[in-house]
Amino acid sequence: MRVEEREDPRIVEPTDAVIRLSAACVCGSDLWPYRGIAQVDGPAPMGHEYVGIVEEVGGDVRTVRPGQFVVGSFFASDNTCENCRAGYQSSCVHRVGIGGLGAQAQYLRVPLADGTLVATPEPPPDDLVPGLLAASDVLGTGWFAAVAAEVGPGRTVAVVGDGAVGLLGVLAAKHLGAERIIAMSRHADRQKLALGYGATDIVTERGDDGVGRIKDLTGGLGAHCVIEAVGTQESMMQAIHSTRPGGHVGYVGVAHDVALPGLELFYSHVHLHGGPAPVRRFLPELIDLIVERRIDPGKVFDLTLPLEQAAEGYKAMDERRAIKVLLQP
Amino acid sequence: MRVEEREDPRIVEPTDAVIRLSAACVCGSDLWPYRGIAQVDGPAPMGHEYVGIVEEVGGDVRTVRPGQFVVGSFFASDNTCENCRAGYQSSCVHRVGIGGLGAQAQYLRVPLADGTLVATPEPPPDDLVPGLLAASDVLGTGWFAAVAAEVGPGRTVAVVGDGAVGLLGVLAAKHLGAERIIAMSRHADRQKLALGYGATDIVTERGDDGVGRIKDLTGGLGAHCVIEAVGTQESMMQAIHSTRPGGHVGYVGVAHDVALPGLELFYSHVHLHGGPAPVRRFLPELIDLIVERRIDPGKVFDLTLPLEQAAEGYKAMDERRAIKVLLQP
Repeated sequence: MRVEEREDPRIVEPTDAVIRLSAACVCGSDLWPYRGIAQVDGPAPMGHEYVGIVEEVGGDVRTVRPGQFVVGSFFASDNTCENCRAGYQSSCVHRVGIGGLGAQAQYLRVPLADGTLVATPEPPPDDLVPGLLAASDVLGTGWFAAVAAEVGPGRTVAVVGDGAVGLLGVLAAKHLGAERIIAMSRHADRQKLALGYGATDIVTERGDDGVGRIKDLTGGLGAHCVIEAVGTQESMMQAIHSTRPGGHVGYVGVAHDVALPGLELFYSHVHLHGGPAPVRRFLPELIDLIVERRIDPGKVFDLTLPLEQAAEGYKAMDERRAIKVLLQP
Repeated sequence: MRVEEREDPRIVEPTDAVIRLSAACVCGSDLWPYRGIAQVDGPAPMGHEYVGIVEEVGGDVRTVRPGQFVVGSFFASDNTCENCRAGYQSSCVHRVGIGGLGAQAQYLRVPLADGTLVATPEPPPDDLVPGLLAASDVLGTGWFAAVAAEVGPGRTVAVVGDGAVGLLGVLAAKHLGAERIIAMSRHADRQKLALGYGATDIVTERGDDGVGRIKDLTGGLGAHCVIEAVGTQESMMQAIHSTRPGGHVGYVGVAHDVALPGLELFYSHVHLHGGPAPVRRFLPELIDLIVERRIDPGKVFDLTLPLEQAAEGYKAMDERRAIKVLLQP
């Protein structure tokens, strides 16, 4: 991981915008290639979470204009195709991955700007920037997981994973009215943040022991809703086994080397839904909640570094010294 | 497969009923042990689909009485526990598998009779018996698959599997208001029945070619709802790949030797739900529809044999000479 000078991005398509980043950050999914688990063929730009000021727009852009503060997400989407209109903008038929463009930078070209970017009512004060940056991915992803898990009033929710997404899944579950929220975490700092976001119980055990504890807390049945925010075989099975028959698993951990055993899934009777979060679906609502200071997702950033020290940011997250690292361009 | 004399079943628990079977049948899932794919350790009673007349009830049975014509399903359930009340009677905390008791017989002991059996308003005429027998499993299972796939008005539904469950999934989809129903079948007799039950399109291709045809028929996106009624790796992947992002797969084929690749499932954006159908949830409604002659699920029985010729029934289904075999005790 190194920081290099690259040419400033320019408008390529008339539907593009170029933004000057106000803040960037490192995602848990950035650690997959960092750790060598996801294949990388050579030097590649990194980063897909971003907020910033619009510098320039292409000739066809209608809904955002230079000077606006905007929030995007990790897939650019037209927001007009049938998949987008169904609420699955991250499966937009014209989607473009932002990761390949590299949002850990000073400037970013955002394709399909009208469909992708959502402007705040006015440029936000500095203390709201981390929260808005969180909306770009980890909050939107935790929120989608909670919605996919059908969290609602009266429900008991378990959250597998205590990274930023899991912690913001706790926040989402609280906001969506969950009665009881069980955070699975072995780290004191993360437990504390989970409790601050609305967790009612902490389970420190993992795997079968963790499942046993969830069963103990739910009359032997399992949780109604389980948020899976890791993406390993163990975490997926922990989530499925922690869910009661007829309950819902919302999974957003990028599922590396996972194979779900069919017969076990069959007899579990759970609903399974997830995938790359359609963050764009939730952005208008999330921006409102942040700007109105009703939620404070920015607390997941517990280390702030200048962009030049991005390598140290990756290292700190890899070693779990930081929950999430904010990079200042 | 052979027919043997066994002792008549008697009341064991005060919650039991003993019924005299009016008809029994062979299930697609009975073919798994028949083919040696599911392990069998020695001679075992077979059969889990049943309708009949109540002969005797235990001292605690309140809702059914001798002389009534009743329909049950493949798991006995108390219908009062939290899983039952959530509509997942096949995950009842006190469930008892009927297969182990053997419904391909003249008499059957049914545990948890109050929770398990549903009586018809009056003993039905003979021509309705096959339909009511279908409700006991294949209709209830196809119905659950359609509900799990969130079939409804305006939806395009694809059905993977042209056995009795798939065909009755077509019937369920039609009844639930689907706009378009694509049956995947290579057999002329089954295609004909599918069209009679409401299929609007037939796709004869399988695997990737079948998926390609579904995409062609749905503007490149895939179906909103896919019913999976086979239970193999190929059929599961065919179902998942045939579903559009945000769409729903309802799977009821018993998933033998299936392992779902996590990353592929992740990026598919589908909802996945299924398992052993909670037939009991649907029985009251299905019995009404059959008795009022609004649906005719009994047409899936295309071969009727005396119980003594059960072995020939298994053979005919295994060789796909029959869709489903009714056995007369």
